[in-house]
Amino acid sequence: MAIRGGLPTESGAVGVEGPRLVEEALRSGCAVRAVLFSESGQRHHARFGTYLDRSRVAIPILHTTDRLFLGIADTEQPQGVAALVTPRTFSLADISASGVAGAAPLVVVLVGVQDPGNVGTILRTAAAFGATAAVTAASGQGGTASPFSPKSLRASAGAALHLRLLAGISLPLLLEEFRAREIRTLASSSREAQAGRGPLVAPWEVDWRAPLALLIGNEGQGLPEEIASSADAAIRIPMSASVESINAAAAAAVLLYEASRQRRSPARQIP
Amino acid sequence: MAIRGGLPTESGAVGVEGPRLVEEALRSGCAVRAVLFSESGQRHHARFGTYLDRSRVAIPILHTTDRLFLGIADTEQPQGVAALVTPRTFSLADISASGVAGAAPLVVVLVGVQDPGNVGTILRTAAAFGATAAVTAASGQGGTASPFSPKSLRASAGAALHLRLLAGISLPLLLEEFRAREIRTLASSSREAQAGRGPLVAPWEVDWRAPLALLIGNEGQGLPEEIASSADAAIRIPMSASVESINAAAAAAVLLYEASRQRRSPARQIP
Repeated sequence: MAIRGGLPTESGAVGVEGPRLVEEALRSGCAVRAVLFSESGQRHHARFGTYLDRSRVAIPILHTTDRLFLGIADTEQPQGVAALVTPRTFSLADISASGVAGAAPLVVVLVGVQDPGNVGTILRTAAAFGATAAVTAASGQGGTASPFSPKSLRASAGAALHLRLLAGISLPLLLEEFRAREIRTLASSSREAQAGRGPLVAPWEVDWRAPLALLIGNEGQGLPEEIASSADAAIRIPMSASVESINAAAAAAVLLYEASRQRRSPARQIP
Repeated sequence: MAIRGGLPTESGAVGVEGPRLVEEALRSGCAVRAVLFSESGQRHHARFGTYLDRSRVAIPILHTTDRLFLGIADTEQPQGVAALVTPRTFSLADISASGVAGAAPLVVVLVGVQDPGNVGTILRTAAAFGATAAVTAASGQGGTASPFSPKSLRASAGAALHLRLLAGISLPLLLEEFRAREIRTLASSSREAQAGRGPLVAPWEVDWRAPLALLIGNEGQGLPEEIASSADAAIRIPMSASVESINAAAAAAVLLYEASRQRRSPARQIP
C-alpha cells in the first residue's frame, strides 16, 4: 500500500500520515492524489475543509475502517487520516537559482546524513531560517536517508514538502554546478577537531549574505576529506574543550540561525 | 541489574554502556563503582588503561560472558563494556553560584521536556556552549525525562556526567533562588507565535553576559503560561512565516550558541 511506504512510488507519490502532515501536504501546493479517512479519523475532516471543499480542486476522498487503517499505518497510534502526495520536482538549475526577493541562494546540502530524524530536523530548521533550497546526496561512505520516509517527514513537520528540494543528486555534478554559478561552498563540522584544509572560520566570520551552499556531513564521520578540503571554507563551531562534538542537527541549526541573523540585519556585522 | 536501569538506584549509581560512555564516566571525575567487560568487550580494555591502571584508584573490574552481557544490556548491539557510576550531586546554591573564571552563571533549565533524546541533546549542546549548570524540573503538565536514562545519556554523549546538574527540583523553589541571587530568567520558545506577556526579544537582543537562566519548555506545549509570563524576558527566534516551529533541541542549540558567541566576544554587540 502506497500510504505506508513514505518513499516515492513509481508514480512519484509519497504517503503522509496524521492530521498535521496531511494539512501541510494540502497547504504546500503539491498535488495531493487522495486523502484517506478511517471511521474515527473522520473527525479531522473539518480541519481540512478549506482545502477539500474548494470547487476547483477535486481530490478523491477515500474511506476505510479503523481496522484496515491500522494495517496500513506507519505510526504506532494512527490518527485515522493519511494522504498520497506528489512532491514538486526541481532541477539543478532551480536549486542554484533559488534566491528569493533579492536574497542570494542559501542551499543546504546533506551529504551522507544517515538518521532520518536528523534529515527531517535539518530540513525543518532550514525552512525556518530561510534556506532557499535543499539537496540530499550520497557520500563515499553511504547515502543520505530519504527526506520522504515516514520518520523524516514527521521530523521535518512537512518542511520537505515546502522547500525546493532535490533528493539524491550526484555530488560531483552538484559541486560543478555551484562552481559554474559562483555559489561558494562551506564545509561544516559538528566536531571541534575535524575540518578540511581550507581556512577555518567561526560561524560569525562567514558572510552569509553571499550565494552559499552549506555542506553537512555524516553524523559520525563528517564530510569526506576530499569534499571538506575542496570547499571554499570550512566552518568550525567553537566549543568548550571538554566537549568533542555536538549533534549534527544541532550544528546545522546553529549555522542556519547565524545565516538568518545576518540576512535579517541591515548591514554585515562581524563581532 | 543496576547496569540496565540507567536511573539512579537507591545508592545513587547509574549504569552506562558502551566504550564511549564508559570513557566519559571515567574521565568525568565521578565515582565509578565498577567496570564490566564481556568476553568480546575485553578488546576495549586498552582504551581505558590510563584510567583503570592508575594506582591510587581501585575500580573493581568484573567479567562476564557475551551471553549474560546481552541479557543486561540496554542497547541492541551491545559492545561488551559497561560501568556503574555515581553522578556528582549539586545543591541549589552550587547551581546559582556556578559562574566560572569570571563568567556569570548561565543555567539551562528544562521544564517538562519529555523526550529523553531531546534532554540528552540539549545537555550536550549546553556543555559545548559553556553553560555553567543545568537543572531539570517538572511543569504542570508533566516531568522532564531523566538525564540519566540510557537514551538521554547516549544523546548527551556523557555531558550529563560532566555538567553541574541538578535533576528534579521544584520549579517555584528554583525561581525563588534565581530571584534572590539576581539571576535573570529568560523564557524560550521553539514556536513563532507562542510567548509570554513579557517583552519579546530576538536572541541577539539579549545580553547573554549577565547572570542568566534559560527556561526551555515542553516540545509540544512549551513553557506553562504562568512561568513564561513571570520570566524577566521572553525570547522569540525569528522564523520564516511558513514555518510554525522548530525542534526543541534545535531551538536550545540556537540560543546557547548565541550566548557562547557573545560571551567569547570582547565587547557586547547588538547588530
